[in-house]
Amino acid sequence: MLKDFEKTKPEEKEALNAEIKELRARLIVQQQLLREAKLPVLVLLEGWAAAGKGSLVKEIISEIDPRFYNVVSPVVIPESEARYPFLYPYAAAIPENGKLIFLDSGWMEDTVRKILRLEITKEEYKRRVRSVNEFERQLRDGGYLLLKIFLHIDEEEQYERLRTLSENAETEWRVTPDDLWQHKEYKKFLKAYDDFMEDTNDTIHWHILDGKRKKAAVRDAMKLLVNKIDKALEHGRYVGEPFDEKFPLIKMPKLAEVDLSPTISDEDYKKELKRLQKRLSELHNIIYWKKIPVILCYEGWDAAGKGGNIRRVAYPLDPRGFDVHPIASPEPHELNRQYLWRFWTRLPRTGHICIFDRTWYGRVMVERLEGFCSEKDWKRAYNEINEFERQLTDWGAVLLKFWIHIDSDTQLARFTDRQNTPEKQWKITDEDWRNREKWPQYEEAVNEMLKKTSTENAPWYIIESNDKKYARIKALKIVVKSLEKACEEHFQREFG
Amino acid sequence: MLKDFEKTKPEEKEALNAEIKELRARLIVQQQLLREAKLPVLVLLEGWAAAGKGSLVKEIISEIDPRFYNVVSPVVIPESEARYPFLYPYAAAIPENGKLIFLDSGWMEDTVRKILRLEITKEEYKRRVRSVNEFERQLRDGGYLLLKIFLHIDEEEQYERLRTLSENAETEWRVTPDDLWQHKEYKKFLKAYDDFMEDTNDTIHWHILDGKRKKAAVRDAMKLLVNKIDKALEHGRYVGEPFDEKFPLIKMPKLAEVDLSPTISDEDYKKELKRLQKRLSELHNIIYWKKIPVILCYEGWDAAGKGGNIRRVAYPLDPRGFDVHPIASPEPHELNRQYLWRFWTRLPRTGHICIFDRTWYGRVMVERLEGFCSEKDWKRAYNEINEFERQLTDWGAVLLKFWIHIDSDTQLARFTDRQNTPEKQWKITDEDWRNREKWPQYEEAVNEMLKKTSTENAPWYIIESNDKKYARIKALKIVVKSLEKACEEHFQREFG
Repeated sequence: MLKDFEKTKPEEKEALNAEIKELRARLIVQQQLLREAKLPVLVLLEGWAAAGKGSLVKEIISEIDPRFYNVVSPVVIPESEARYPFLYPYAAAIPENGKLIFLDSGWMEDTVRKILRLEITKEEYKRRVRSVNEFERQLRDGGYLLLKIFLHIDEEEQYERLRTLSENAETEWRVTPDDLWQHKEYKKFLKAYDDFMEDTNDTIHWHILDGKRKKAAVRDAMKLLVNKIDKALEHGRYVGEPFDEKFPLIKMPKLAEVDLSPTISDEDYKKELKRLQKRLSELHNIIYWKKIPVILCYEGWDAAGKGGNIRRVAYPLDPRGFDVHPIASPEPHELNRQYLWRFWTRLPRTGHICIFDRTWYGRVMVERLEGFCSEKDWKRAYNEINEFERQLTDWGAVLLKFWIHIDSDTQLARFTDRQNTPEKQWKITDEDWRNREKWPQYEEAVNEMLKKTSTENAPWYIIESNDKKYARIKALKIVVKSLEKACEEHFQREFG
Repeated sequence: MLKDFEKTKPEEKEALNAEIKELRARLIVQQQLLREAKLPVLVLLEGWAAAGKGSLVKEIISEIDPRFYNVVSPVVIPESEARYPFLYPYAAAIPENGKLIFLDSGWMEDTVRKILRLEITKEEYKRRVRSVNEFERQLRDGGYLLLKIFLHIDEEEQYERLRTLSENAETEWRVTPDDLWQHKEYKKFLKAYDDFMEDTNDTIHWHILDGKRKKAAVRDAMKLLVNKIDKALEHGRYVGEPFDEKFPLIKMPKLAEVDLSPTISDEDYKKELKRLQKRLSELHNIIYWKKIPVILCYEGWDAAGKGGNIRRVAYPLDPRGFDVHPIASPEPHELNRQYLWRFWTRLPRTGHICIFDRTWYGRVMVERLEGFCSEKDWKRAYNEINEFERQLTDWGAVLLKFWIHIDSDTQLARFTDRQNTPEKQWKITDEDWRNREKWPQYEEAVNEMLKKTSTENAPWYIIESNDKKYARIKALKIVVKSLEKACEEHFQREFG
């Protein structure tokens, strides 16, 4: 794309100024309309060092309300964020409904630098490209406006600019060793930028602007933005169509086919619990040391015993190395962003374990059944979730999903017991009873979920929990076995 | 305190186990009662390397619901957080109402290490101690339960433990260079820990436990915690009494005395605006380079022109180096924490500018007048805010506070204009009209606020804004002058 790039022709200054002025006036009106329409906008601005990205943003926003936009500069990912998946800083920065975010460099710059420095392999590069395409599509399908701009200057122009900056005592510090390295390797960067844009041009198109003609670049960027917003305001918030990608799936039984009779004797329970917890404690040490991230997902019927199960898994873990995230209804600032945002921002660092007590699968269960999202939304979610989980396992995470299962009679017995036992009454609410009435609908939704999202990289495990002790031992065994496998694979990669 | 420390005597294991078991059972009941009473608990756990802090936490929490507590380990502050005030990671980690947080080392460890490494001066140490005492008192007065434990082992014991860890291939990596350095400098650390505890023992007392007797330490820590919770549950949420600390104050006029007639000609406005914005742009460069944090606070009457004023200040700034935080009513997760939390977590990094469009002063204005907090709460807030702001300026921040002022007639004219102009109607709500009816009460509250919180380090500036253009120039002049002064002082310190 950069090879065929045609430079912008010099234009008359007065005419350009007039055009920019008019575009600014339109943007001022649009900011209010976007707020009313609750449309979020994300502008990704990539480009060469010294191409003028900062000045471009400044000119675009110069007259709009500072409460309406934000500029995020993740050029250098801080060490603390480097221990998260590579999309994490961007996923965490997505705007709220009705707001606009400029990403002053993002997933492209980080990826291009890393591949040129050989910090990631070609396979990893390909996985990143796939993740980027998925990430962008998910945002678009969730109603986000995305605009991707690359600000281009040629080698000669970059030389001049870096020299001017370096010669001036006040601006010299702005030229970083990374910038000089980029200039030295201009041709390699040219190819790498070009490749990346080719690879990520299908869902959201790239727009290349000529950084040498500053005013024209401002005009062109604003025109793109204003037109995109106009179109979105006209057509309303976009809701993506569901579609199927073929993920390798593990065949799951229907819930009705699950045999819930397994039990364990008290004696075996105690023995097994002790053995498995001891082993898990040892494994946690290795996990922490080898920086393997672990994500455990708990879903299940009300009163199935999720809490007690989680407690038995958490008990042997070093408290400094794990977190439990109870997931309740989303708060306003969470509802105002794409639905996976509140999970992105709760991911564990490498070497840490996090346990989700309820998860993103709320989308295809409670949100589906209570009508909290549209049919297209939840139908799209199976695929989106599979992609999200593949991004996590690509990053190196061990991701296990437990469906804690009981039958309807057992639930009734436990509800009644809670109701009749004073110190357990807080555990039971009217909502639990209401949900119980919808058991058949939930069962159907769960069956569909298990069928469509039990991928090889992130499988579902049905944990029979009519006997809670049996369920705890089964979950612990799966955790221990999976972590042993992950540690083993890690050693193989390191020494094999 | 450590000098007079008496070691715990060996006790019978069976009896200890029984005591611990009983305490655990009490804690399980308490977690539910705390949730209902919406009481937040913060346990600060400090102590020697290898004293067993991690194991202690693990034993305490072993049977409580993982959804109820969190363990935060800020021993090593990541680089990204080092660019915030030293209390930032702890202030950001305070628990929600009804939850319990264990800080596995906190403000003590960081401060002691830094003073021993000469990374902070004695004056800075003293300021830190003062800030810690203020921070702890503010949490207590805001209804938080605080428990501070120091886990002690003597030099010989530490030697044994570090050696055992180092000799075992699986645990060797746990011994850090910092741990070895601490052991080498055991006596210096002993004195420094002792001094720090003496210095921070008045508001919330320290409890020193014997790390050598592990079981007894668990029992003692749990007893302290359980008794503290029992007491709090009995007496209800604590609300601190207002009190006055003498801050050096700048005398402010009453609002009624302010002459609102100043205006500026269009010609002068354009000239001044251009000059000041150019200068501010240059200063932003230096600010960024020299890593000076800047906080601009905007308060004022509805329709006084805050938004337009902010826009003129923001225009010349590099968008990558500033943020605007519009402050609306707190969201549930913000209401569930001490009221300054949502400002702590929005502070700028060093070298960045942040502009608050409305601020923490909501506590003594809208929250006071609408009854969103108790009388004791808002009366205490003047002092708490002065302390908070001193912590910010101690950190090196430039902190400016603007009251954008108009008279009641001007507000009426602007409200009416908004009502009658279709593209401005979104700016005016029923709430604005309701607030307007309370003008006299607000005026009284603002007068009290200006009088009590215009400290020398963080002064208020009344910006006459009947003529908005005059107001913008006045605010810009103050910003430019203050930043020039800060840069000058910075150079003096560096080269003087």
